[in-house]
Amino acid sequence: MAGFKYDIKEHIGNISESPKGWTKELNLISWNNREPKYDLRDWAPEHEKMGKGVTFTKEELKELRDILNEIDL
Amino acid sequence: MAGFKYDIKEHIGNISESPKGWTKELNLISWNNREPKYDLRDWAPEHEKMGKGVTFTKEELKELRDILNEIDL
Repeated sequence: MAGFKYDIKEHIGNISESPKGWTKELNLISWNNREPKYDLRDWAPEHEKMGKGVTFTKEELKELRDILNEIDL
Repeated sequence: MAGFKYDIKEHIGNISESPKGWTKELNLISWNNREPKYDLRDWAPEHEKMGKGVTFTKEELKELRDILNEIDL
Protein backbone atom coordinates (compact mmCIF):
# COMPACT_ATOMS: atom_id res chain seq x y z
CA MET A 1 0.00 0.00 0.00
CA ALA A 2 2.84 2.41 -0.83
CA GLY A 3 2.17 5.69 -2.53
CA PHE A 4 -0.58 7.09 -0.42
CA LYS A 5 -1.18 8.00 3.14
CA TYR A 6 -4.37 7.68 5.07
CA ASP A 7 -5.49 8.74 8.48
CA ILE A 8 -8.64 7.31 10.06
CA LYS A 9 -10.15 10.40 11.66
CA GLU A 10 -13.20 8.67 13.06
CA HIS A 11 -14.32 5.06 13.25
CA ILE A 12 -18.08 5.34 12.81
CA GLY A 13 -19.24 1.76 12.85
CA ASN A 14 -18.66 -1.90 12.05
CA ILE A 15 -21.07 -3.46 9.58
CA SER A 16 -19.90 -7.06 9.80
CA GLU A 17 -16.96 -9.31 10.59
CA SER A 18 -15.82 -12.26 8.49
CA PRO A 19 -14.67 -15.59 9.94
CA LYS A 20 -11.06 -14.55 9.22
CA GLY A 21 -11.48 -11.36 11.21
CA TRP A 22 -11.86 -8.88 8.36
CA THR A 23 -14.34 -6.15 9.22
CA LYS A 24 -16.55 -4.11 6.93
CA GLU A 25 -16.43 -0.60 8.34
CA LEU A 26 -17.70 2.91 7.89
CA ASN A 27 -14.96 5.41 8.73
CA LEU A 28 -14.15 9.04 8.17
CA ILE A 29 -10.74 8.97 6.47
CA SER A 30 -8.32 11.58 5.22
CA TRP A 31 -6.42 10.36 2.14
CA ASN A 32 -3.08 12.04 1.41
CA ASN A 33 -3.88 14.76 3.93
CA ARG A 34 -6.95 15.87 2.00
CA GLU A 35 -10.26 16.74 3.57
CA PRO A 36 -11.71 13.62 5.23
CA LYS A 37 -14.33 11.59 3.35
CA TYR A 38 -16.69 8.88 4.48
CA ASP A 39 -15.35 5.51 3.48
CA LEU A 40 -16.90 2.04 3.26
CA ARG A 41 -14.50 -0.91 2.90
CA ASP A 42 -13.21 -4.17 4.37
CA TRP A 43 -10.21 -4.13 6.68
CA ALA A 44 -7.94 -6.89 7.90
CA PRO A 45 -7.51 -7.31 11.67
CA GLU A 46 -5.51 -4.39 13.13
CA HIS A 47 -6.16 -2.48 9.87
CA GLU A 48 -2.91 -3.77 8.38
CA LYS A 49 -4.55 -4.40 4.99
CA MET A 50 -7.54 -2.88 3.25
CA GLY A 51 -9.92 -4.11 0.60
CA LYS A 52 -11.46 -2.10 -2.21
CA GLY A 53 -13.81 0.59 -1.06
CA VAL A 54 -16.08 3.44 -1.92
CA THR A 55 -15.81 6.99 -0.60
CA PHE A 56 -18.71 9.33 -0.01
CA THR A 57 -19.29 12.99 0.66
CA LYS A 58 -21.70 13.84 3.44
CA GLU A 59 -24.37 14.60 0.83
CA GLU A 60 -23.86 11.19 -0.80
CA LEU A 61 -24.11 9.44 2.51
CA LYS A 62 -27.39 11.24 3.26
CA GLU A 63 -28.72 10.15 -0.12
CA LEU A 64 -27.65 6.56 0.57
CA ARG A 65 -29.36 6.68 3.98
CA ASP A 66 -32.56 7.92 2.36
CA ILE A 67 -32.47 5.16 -0.26
CA LEU A 68 -31.89 2.52 2.42
CA ASN A 69 -34.82 3.87 4.43
CA GLU A 70 -37.11 3.67 1.40
CA ILE A 71 -36.43 0.09 0.38
CA ASP A 72 -37.73 -3.06 1.97
CA LEU A 73 -34.81 -4.79 3.69
CA MET B 1 -13.21 -6.25 -17.35
CA ALA B 2 -12.68 -9.74 -18.77
CA GLY B 3 -12.85 -12.79 -16.58
CA PHE B 4 -16.08 -12.26 -14.82
CA LYS B 5 -19.69 -11.80 -15.70
CA TYR B 6 -22.18 -9.62 -13.98
CA ASP B 7 -25.88 -9.12 -14.30
CA ILE B 8 -27.61 -6.12 -12.76
CA LYS B 9 -30.78 -7.68 -11.37
CA GLU B 10 -32.20 -4.50 -9.90
CA HIS B 11 -31.17 -0.87 -10.03
CA ILE B 12 -32.11 0.36 -6.58
CA GLY B 13 -30.98 3.95 -6.57
CA ASN B 14 -28.55 6.65 -7.72
CA ILE B 15 -26.56 8.34 -4.97
CA SER B 16 -24.83 11.00 -7.04
CA GLU B 17 -23.61 11.90 -10.51
CA SER B 18 -20.20 13.37 -11.33
CA PRO B 19 -19.64 16.16 -13.88
CA LYS B 20 -18.33 13.52 -16.32
CA GLY B 21 -21.50 11.49 -16.00
CA TRP B 22 -20.28 8.73 -13.67
CA THR B 23 -22.96 7.69 -11.24
CA LYS B 24 -22.61 6.25 -7.75
CA GLU B 25 -25.26 3.55 -7.56
CA LEU B 26 -26.79 0.95 -5.31
CA ASN B 27 -27.69 -2.14 -7.31
CA LEU B 28 -28.53 -5.77 -6.77
CA ILE B 29 -25.97 -7.63 -8.88
CA SER B 30 -25.26 -11.26 -9.63
CA TRP B 31 -21.51 -11.87 -10.15
CA ASN B 32 -20.57 -14.95 -12.19
CA ASN B 33 -24.11 -16.26 -11.93
CA ARG B 34 -23.94 -16.42 -8.14
CA GLU B 35 -26.70 -15.32 -5.83
CA PRO B 36 -27.21 -11.56 -6.22
CA LYS B 37 -25.60 -9.21 -3.70
CA TYR B 38 -26.16 -5.56 -2.97
CA ASP B 39 -23.43 -3.50 -4.57
CA LEU B 40 -22.26 0.09 -4.11
CA ARG B 41 -19.94 1.50 -6.78
CA ASP B 42 -19.36 4.14 -9.43
CA TRP B 43 -20.35 3.48 -13.01
CA ALA B 44 -19.48 5.22 -16.27
CA PRO B 45 -22.35 6.43 -18.46
CA GLU B 46 -24.20 3.47 -20.01
CA HIS B 47 -22.47 1.20 -17.47
CA GLU B 48 -19.60 0.50 -19.90
CA LYS B 49 -17.02 0.83 -17.11
CA MET B 50 -17.16 0.32 -13.38
CA GLY B 51 -15.14 1.65 -10.48
CA LYS B 52 -14.13 -0.16 -7.33
CA GLY B 53 -16.99 -1.16 -5.13
CA VAL B 54 -18.23 -2.88 -2.04
CA THR B 55 -20.77 -5.68 -1.90
CA PHE B 56 -23.21 -6.31 0.91
CA THR B 57 -25.51 -9.02 2.09
CA LYS B 58 -29.00 -7.97 3.12
CA GLU B 59 -27.97 -8.20 6.78
CA GLU B 60 -24.96 -5.95 6.16
CA LEU B 61 -27.11 -3.41 4.34
CA LYS B 62 -29.54 -3.34 7.28
CA GLU B 63 -26.66 -2.76 9.66
CA LEU B 64 -25.36 0.05 7.45
CA ARG B 65 -28.83 1.61 7.37
CA ASP B 66 -29.02 1.47 11.17
CA ILE B 67 -25.59 3.09 11.52
CA LEU B 68 -26.55 5.86 9.08
CA ASN B 69 -29.75 6.50 11.00
CA GLU B 70 -27.85 6.83 14.27
CA ILE B 71 -25.23 9.35 13.17
CA ASP B 72 -25.66 13.05 12.68
CA LEU B 73 -25.43 13.76 8.94
